[in-house]
Amino acid sequence: MNKGSVENHFEDFRIGQCFKCPTPRALSDADRVAYISYTGDRTPRFCNSSGLIHPLIVFHTVLGQTVRQISLNARANLGYAELIFGMPVHIGDEIHTTAQVIGLKENSNGTTGIVYVRTTGQNQRDEAVLEYVRWVMVKKKERKETQYLSAPSVPRLASSVRCDRLRIETHEDCCMMVTGGTLYFGDYDIGERIFHVDGMTINSSDHMCFTRLFQNSARVHFDNQLTNGRPLVYGGLPLSIGYALSYNGMENRLGIVAINGGTHANPVYPGDTLYAFTDVIDKMDLPGTYGALRLRLLVVKNEQPEATATFHIKTPDPQATKEGYNKNVVLDLDYWDMIAKGE
Amino acid sequence: MNKGSVENHFEDFRIGQCFKCPTPRALSDADRVAYISYTGDRTPRFCNSSGLIHPLIVFHTVLGQTVRQISLNARANLGYAELIFGMPVHIGDEIHTTAQVIGLKENSNGTTGIVYVRTTGQNQRDEAVLEYVRWVMVKKKERKETQYLSAPSVPRLASSVRCDRLRIETHEDCCMMVTGGTLYFGDYDIGERIFHVDGMTINSSDHMCFTRLFQNSARVHFDNQLTNGRPLVYGGLPLSIGYALSYNGMENRLGIVAINGGTHANPVYPGDTLYAFTDVIDKMDLPGTYGALRLRLLVVKNEQPEATATFHIKTPDPQATKEGYNKNVVLDLDYWDMIAKGE
Amino acid sequence: MNKGSVENHFEDFRIGQCFKCPTPRALSDADRVAYISYTGDRTPRFCNSSGLIHPLIVFHTVLGQTVRQISLNARANLGYAELIFGMPVHIGDEIHTTAQVIGLKENSNGTTGIVYVRTTGQNQRDEAVLEYVRWVMVKKKERKETQYLSAPSVPRLASSVRCDRLRIETHEDCCMMVTGGTLYFGDYDIGERIFHVDGMTINSSDHMCFTRLFQNSARVHFDNQLTNGRPLVYGGLPLSIGYALSYNGMENRLGIVAINGGTHANPVYPGDTLYAFTDVIDKMDLPGTYGALRLRLLVVKNEQPEATATFHIKTPDPQATKEGYNKNVVLDLDYWDMIAKGE
Repeated sequence: MNKGSVENHFEDFRIGQCFKCPTPRALSDADRVAYISYTGDRTPRFCNSSGLIHPLIVFHTVLGQTVRQISLNARANLGYAELIFGMPVHIGDEIHTTAQVIGLKENSNGTTGIVYVRTTGQNQRDEAVLEYVRWVMVKKKERKETQYLSAPSVPRLASSVRCDRLRIETHEDCCMMVTGGTLYFGDYDIGERIFHVDGMTINSSDHMCFTRLFQNSARVHFDNQLTNGRPLVYGGLPLSIGYALSYNGMENRLGIVAINGGTHANPVYPGDTLYAFTDVIDKMDLPGTYGALRLRLLVVKNEQPEATATFHIKTPDPQATKEGYNKNVVLDLDYWDMIAKGE
Repeated sequence: MNKGSVENHFEDFRIGQCFKCPTPRALSDADRVAYISYTGDRTPRFCNSSGLIHPLIVFHTVLGQTVRQISLNARANLGYAELIFGMPVHIGDEIHTTAQVIGLKENSNGTTGIVYVRTTGQNQRDEAVLEYVRWVMVKKKERKETQYLSAPSVPRLASSVRCDRLRIETHEDCCMMVTGGTLYFGDYDIGERIFHVDGMTINSSDHMCFTRLFQNSARVHFDNQLTNGRPLVYGGLPLSIGYALSYNGMENRLGIVAINGGTHANPVYPGDTLYAFTDVIDKMDLPGTYGALRLRLLVVKNEQPEATATFHIKTPDPQATKEGYNKNVVLDLDYWDMIAKGE
Repeated sequence: MNKGSVENHFEDFRIGQCFKCPTPRALSDADRVAYISYTGDRTPRFCNSSGLIHPLIVFHTVLGQTVRQISLNARANLGYAELIFGMPVHIGDEIHTTAQVIGLKENSNGTTGIVYVRTTGQNQRDEAVLEYVRWVMVKKKERKETQYLSAPSVPRLASSVRCDRLRIETHEDCCMMVTGGTLYFGDYDIGERIFHVDGMTINSSDHMCFTRLFQNSARVHFDNQLTNGRPLVYGGLPLSIGYALSYNGMENRLGIVAINGGTHANPVYPGDTLYAFTDVIDKMDLPGTYGALRLRLLVVKNEQPEATATFHIKTPDPQATKEGYNKNVVLDLDYWDMIAKGE
């Protein structure tokens, strides 16, 4: 037995199994700065002297901690649900993560199965900073059937995070924020679409440095030989780039507070250029100085979606890919953000 | 109206108009380290335990803060003048910026105009850390003439920063500095040329990460599709690379204190290799342990200037570009630095 | 004389000569984060809230500080010996370095010579944090023979660092570490080989940013023109990548404590993919909760060593390179690490 082989296959997982994930990570000023340098994010609270860590840094850190045990050799990262940010993370907090298997379903092809995992990231006081469910397609060791082919165990997941679970920060002094934006909660209408205009090309070093930053060691992102010269970009990077691009038009946001669901619709490779637009799908007035917007962020590669008269997110085209997505859509993210109400 | 469209065009500017620029940025150890990693800068005061932030980090931070409102879609960054560093910036300082329009001049081609802006960066105590005038060529929305075609308003700018305005740091203990250099103020002669020998190739990730670090979101730097596969390198990178290269031969410098003028003479693209040389154009003895040198830093691409018997900064060659510059000159910077007098 | 020419050639060195190396460098959280981002290292003590700096960061910092005076234009970095880490380095420590010439040997080709240097890195309290001997091949200024051709002065170097000189940290609470690993000191056998499975492709920006981070200014790493488009990767990067890859199978390690010897067997260029395996060559039980393992880390390019039935580190093949190494072996490192004994 080679001591360096550490990956779990589908057969190694059991319902209820709980993983303590290596390695605890202290987040610092430097993670804020590296994140800005790799994504261009300009959300004010995460680059000023507040000392707050961007929630997406927390997301990538926690997800990265689960890779070794859950998804080191996964075929695909299928989706997210019930993702909610808890205690805000500040410079100096140390994050550790546990992951519990809550569902298993073998695929009929005999070579893979789907593993559902509820992940919890906690700070040094064991307060939850992030919780979510993720499901990934994991390779089997051998073709022999498991019990999860005929009797799959699939958890029931909420279609969205209930608004009353969103963490509302009432002590934030929004008047002090200089955001450059003139739009407030009242200015957004359900059903409207916002094109964020800017584009960002992904380079080889960009995506590998970003992925290593979060100690995500999944092989497909790093090894030119394994991937015939086309390492796959970690799906978290288009998410972060898309969120950073969406600053144009949503400058007075507080930062993402929950994810209702997300799909990595198509892969991203080095050299692809990413664009983004946002559909406003719901809004909820909240006590205090912020309201919640339910937003659908679409990240598109190599095509300016605003340049097309009507951009089709899904398409009946025979070239269409997973779930009928337009072949250039790379991320379809349904999330909650908080927006200042203004004076 | 698309909420994501935020750019100003030439017609949107008014003389006297004042912009509060997003987003306030706390500078940290991590900005020092990222700057070193992207440029190789070795100026001792900005990598030792002094906690001082490199003046060029301050410059890029302040300039980056003005991009969204002033130069997001500028055609060209034409020049700088009257640039002077004020209060030193330390780790933890939060920088915010205002920009005031002080001149407007429409170009005769009908499609662009020149916007002159006086920019001031301040720390959290509202002390000025940097002031300068920049002028950029900005696109017009439509061909219709503005009043600034027949009656341009062009500010009168000083040809150099007066030496008595330079901030002199008398409390610096230069004897403690270990710089590796043996040359002091008295060793430099007006008229001499110093070749800095080293060269630095610019990669795609390098320049994009550097530019995003300062939250500069100008599209031409990031979008392969928009630029036919050749994103333009942010002009601030050759400035910083040139300054870092010039450590060889000027090891006992304190750091740049003012810029008299600067021209981005030709564009830089990923793959270009930068070299640098310095002409000593003036010197001024000052009370205390440092003297001021007025230096002309030339950054040249893809050609070792010392390899040519006589390198011509400007040339009558019909291939010559802007203001007659040699086509390989990318930056012509006239600045003041402080150099230790030694024992 | 061009003031920018600062390099030493073979003739400039004298036995006993001592260099104070520029520039003192304060290490911070940001160096930890940048290191993680460039290498993917997951050693728990160097990413949690301990504030400890990775010993290989210290190594690269100290080596980088010697480049300008010792190896700016070296032809080759030949080897290391007697390398031992001293006082642990914490966030905020400032590192300065001295280098003493302890041997000189002119090569018979008349164009180069070997310089042996004992290097000591110290913190702000002048405590040694790292000591080692390195020898490099340095160009001569002219063909004229030196005394070190007929009478070379070659220091006698230990073939390994004695185990009783290793710094043992007894106050470390290994039970608190969450490493993801299940293997402890008692599980490793002398003679066994561990394949670390993962692979890492080196991109242009990765290696230049990594090398600049440590203010190593050796030209061959940065200048596409000088190197015909193939800048040489700094040998320290494969060392760090190899160490990071070797986390798989050695999760409960404390971090490298000494290097007995090391050879950069073949060059690495951008685009190469690195793999690693480890041979356990000795082990030593120590008082307390850790034992010492003497390990041989082999870093291999563009070939998965575990894929070959028997991978030959050295080969009689006529294509074989330096010291008979397999042409894909890039690093052969003999070092001591500490591994937890477990319960």
